[in-house]
Amino acid sequence: MDNFMRLAIEEALQGLKEGGIPIGSVLVHKGKIIGRGHNRRVQQGSVVLHGEMDALENAGRQPAAIYRECVIYTTLSPCPMCTGAILLYGIPTVVIGENQTFMGAEVLLKENNVEVIVANNKECIEMMQQFIKHNPELWYEDIGE
Amino acid sequence: MDNFMRLAIEEALQGLKEGGIPIGSVLVHKGKIIGRGHNRRVQQGSVVLHGEMDALENAGRQPAAIYRECVIYTTLSPCPMCTGAILLYGIPTVVIGENQTFMGAEVLLKENNVEVIVANNKECIEMMQQFIKHNPELWYEDIGE
Repeated sequence: MDNFMRLAIEEALQGLKEGGIPIGSVLVHKGKIIGRGHNRRVQQGSVVLHGEMDALENAGRQPAAIYRECVIYTTLSPCPMCTGAILLYGIPTVVIGENQTFMGAEVLLKENNVEVIVANNKECIEMMQQFIKHNPELWYEDIGE
Repeated sequence: MDNFMRLAIEEALQGLKEGGIPIGSVLVHKGKIIGRGHNRRVQQGSVVLHGEMDALENAGRQPAAIYRECVIYTTLSPCPMCTGAILLYGIPTVVIGENQTFMGAEVLLKENNVEVIVANNKECIEMMQQFIKHNPELWYEDIGE
């Protein structure tokens, strides 16, 4: 497995350990991690810090030119909010752990010429499906349903 | 002027006073404010807390049913990230102070059946144009350009 997806999964598992929703993300610039994070809904009562948003936030303020050379890794298909953030900052490539449990706004990414790579990683699928099975309310809250 | 837009402008002006980017937002549920906020890029070094995101964050974790009865007011046309957040949470109505200085992802909102009301308020236009004139780098950073 791609080493960066491995780290995104580690972020997700860290979130799970904290009692949170196990979705992790890593922002990579030219082969170097500049931000990593995980969903903070439970831990910080945050409605904006999905995994991808937390990775972006932890990367801090970056010039537009940097984002345009980045790849963002996420364990789960990005929701409309995270998709919008990827479009805002012009991140050209998204590597997605899985989109079987949840299909995000991948069509919108592709329509905007973002390269979308879906790993459909078994560990990501199993992690989310187990979480949703045991925490359906938290999951549906996280996707606004 | 709509009283809620007045409060969104007050939020924007508060941000300006703090040395930040003057964009404010108010989240209203059935005529009652449940969240208000302003852009925090400068103040908190945040790349995710645009005005609308800050208002959502300050409203805290809300059930999906609440968001679906909300109106979000924002002094400036919402960027793709904020648009995505509005879509994620299913907020049905967006009232926009102005879209002359910056045209956000209003087409995407409308395609998803969000009601979009544009006030083209002179105070909002003047506030943003003055800010951009004096702080172009900060402004372009905020929209990922």
